[in-house]
Amino acid sequence: MTNDKQAIRDAVALWHRATAAADVDTVLTLMADDATFLVAGQPPMRGRGTFENGLRNLLIQHRIESTADIQEVEVSGDLAYCWTNLTVRVIPIAGGAARVRAGNALSIFRKQSDGSWVLIRDANMMSPA
Amino acid sequence: MTNDKQAIRDAVALWHRATAAADVDTVLTLMADDATFLVAGQPPMRGRGTFENGLRNLLIQHRIESTADIQEVEVSGDLAYCWTNLTVRVIPIAGGAARVRAGNALSIFRKQSDGSWVLIRDANMMSPA
Repeated sequence: MTNDKQAIRDAVALWHRATAAADVDTVLTLMADDATFLVAGQPPMRGRGTFENGLRNLLIQHRIESTADIQEVEVSGDLAYCWTNLTVRVIPIAGGAARVRAGNALSIFRKQSDGSWVLIRDANMMSPA
Repeated sequence: MTNDKQAIRDAVALWHRATAAADVDTVLTLMADDATFLVAGQPPMRGRGTFENGLRNLLIQHRIESTADIQEVEVSGDLAYCWTNLTVRVIPIAGGAARVRAGNALSIFRKQSDGSWVLIRDANMMSPA
């Protein structure tokens, strides 16, 4: 496996570890300023700041446990895609039933001038599990 | 705009024209043999042959009218992504209400040795419109 592919796998793993730890600052280092998130039935969510607001709000009363089973990573130059099978549990801190969603995601990563990879576009096809 | 970006835009436009004309053979030239289609709530649809069977079955009793509003195309080497806002109408030939779905798609294209671009991965986030 190339260093680039491994770097993207490491970024995905860190994303999920940092989310579980409610370490929003670390999650934010893994996406571009103009990262855009696409899901069914909603307009695109544009920008790291919008993502940050949503995640911080969610984490006030919940914790998140998620797993990413990477199906494929392909790299060409400074662009890459990563297909992942995700399971995400959103668990009320006060107790109660977790919301569980699962499904595929197709993510685009861009290589930065320092050699690191950041998420720029994300297509999320999770549904209630 | 680069020739590669224009070639991908042309492929997307041809895909929708050929689908409307029920010209399945032409649509199939626009995807790789291992093209994989991801949607919410279903397992991945793998391979051009599986796509072909589904489309031919649908076209027995329906015609398809679709539009693709391309939001962005980015190319690096032999890999590209295309973000598209889609509207697809599946219209019973015998009459009756069309099923209309709309939403975003994120598609990965790969450049062939002959310089043409084919779809290899597709994340479809359309929902009932």
